[in-house]
Amino acid sequence: VKVAVLGVGLIGGSIGLAARRRAGAEVVGYDPDQGALSRAVELGAIDKPAFEIADAVADADIVFVAAPVGASAQTARLALEAAGPECVVSDVGSTKRQIVEAISDPRFVGGHPLAGAETAGVEGSREDLLDGATWYLTPTVGATAGATGRLSLLIERLGARPVAIEPDAHDRLMASVSHLPHVFANLLVAQVAGAIESLGAAVESDLLGVGPSFRDATRVAGANTAIWTDIYMSNRDALVAAIDEATGRLSEVRKALQDGDSNGLAAWNERARSERAKLQRAGLGPDS
Amino acid sequence: VKVAVLGVGLIGGSIGLAARRRAGAEVVGYDPDQGALSRAVELGAIDKPAFEIADAVADADIVFVAAPVGASAQTARLALEAAGPECVVSDVGSTKRQIVEAISDPRFVGGHPLAGAETAGVEGSREDLLDGATWYLTPTVGATAGATGRLSLLIERLGARPVAIEPDAHDRLMASVSHLPHVFANLLVAQVAGAIESLGAAVESDLLGVGPSFRDATRVAGANTAIWTDIYMSNRDALVAAIDEATGRLSEVRKALQDGDSNGLAAWNERARSERAKLQRAGLGPDS
Repeated sequence: VKVAVLGVGLIGGSIGLAARRRAGAEVVGYDPDQGALSRAVELGAIDKPAFEIADAVADADIVFVAAPVGASAQTARLALEAAGPECVVSDVGSTKRQIVEAISDPRFVGGHPLAGAETAGVEGSREDLLDGATWYLTPTVGATAGATGRLSLLIERLGARPVAIEPDAHDRLMASVSHLPHVFANLLVAQVAGAIESLGAAVESDLLGVGPSFRDATRVAGANTAIWTDIYMSNRDALVAAIDEATGRLSEVRKALQDGDSNGLAAWNERARSERAKLQRAGLGPDS
Repeated sequence: VKVAVLGVGLIGGSIGLAARRRAGAEVVGYDPDQGALSRAVELGAIDKPAFEIADAVADADIVFVAAPVGASAQTARLALEAAGPECVVSDVGSTKRQIVEAISDPRFVGGHPLAGAETAGVEGSREDLLDGATWYLTPTVGATAGATGRLSLLIERLGARPVAIEPDAHDRLMASVSHLPHVFANLLVAQVAGAIESLGAAVESDLLGVGPSFRDATRVAGANTAIWTDIYMSNRDALVAAIDEATGRLSEVRKALQDGDSNGLAAWNERARSERAKLQRAGLGPDS
């Protein structure tokens, strides 16, 4: 099988490594950054570099667009123009409505592997990055069943689990599961930085050894700005809705605190406890 | 040195272990839960059990009240009644204004070691739990310098770093560093549980392998309800203020999303990035 990877960052590089080593694929890579392309060859993430998208996809059976979300639709469009009639073109972007609406081609199937994407760069690529990961696919009515089938088969050989989902459901889910936690992480960092400033610089160095809750809650704060601005912008309405819902929940907790309603706070915490346990059983939660 | 530990949970048990092994102390333990007291003896966290607070503190040089926040003031009061004139009584509660206002005794010095307290129970006790941890002390004008000095000396021998702070500054800082992250964790769990329900049960099992941001952000969701209801209730006003500030920050992000202000979102994320880097340098942030 011949695979083209357009964009050799962490995800593109890891797809290349897994495709070569696990699926015996021949992988051609393209990246506007020549340095990244050279490193991808050195790391064994791709067999050979291409210097034009058209050259990369010319003989490909399957093309993965692994560009930032904002550049994905245009990259996929260029790939589809140069690709053969039996080629499947997919992407790995964190939101799906935008690209699915922009592209109407039976050879295109949107995708999103749920794998850590905070650390950008081909240097972090790993053959096993996608092991066991859910890999959402958004086959539209226009996409041929054959295209989706061949893509799913390769994804399984890479070690991930292809799962079909509607683009709208995907984006709403990601707004709560991924984008809102990133917003909260940024917010907490800003708030604590402000609190330290208002309380005096002396406090700062004394926080050494603070408990794990703040550290865990802010691990993704200030994630790659280019990548995340794209993600936020492409999921604006769903994220606004998630923020509105979160604001409502915050105001309920605020009221319980204001009223000194200890029973209400205890019940609220117990609900979180059982919801967390339920999510843990589904493999989603902490310590899983 | 003779130490009394009133409440042999995770923190009390760890203080006992460290005091016995690192400071050569003789440790008497008290706990209303007889089972916890027996296990504390078995685990070597205390030398011997006492069945009344008065018995535990009778000969003590230093007393640590390691009860839940809601019971700490009353426990400290009973300890001070039975303790000798040279004894120092301290506590380990997560908020400090309440107990400092409630107790006016030159032998009392409030305290708060910043160590993981989510996992309750003496079974989790470790001699090194407090290693390198900041241990806030809130000596009031009434407390004798001798009492604070002797307490600080023992805390250093336990492996922690005693740091003086005003009760008000402490509680405001903890509202942002610790209590708000717990509120956010509960909120995110509830929100994702709701999203999964509204999108259909099929999604739930497909989330297996979701990226680390949600997992990290919700690790402390539904922490021990008794302990945390006490903490929330004893820091109500500071937490309400922190929630109000957070709500304001959320509404700024919402506006940028609503307006499609990608430059504003990028600048906001860059600020979080540099604030995070600054907090990391102070030893507070992620990956430190």
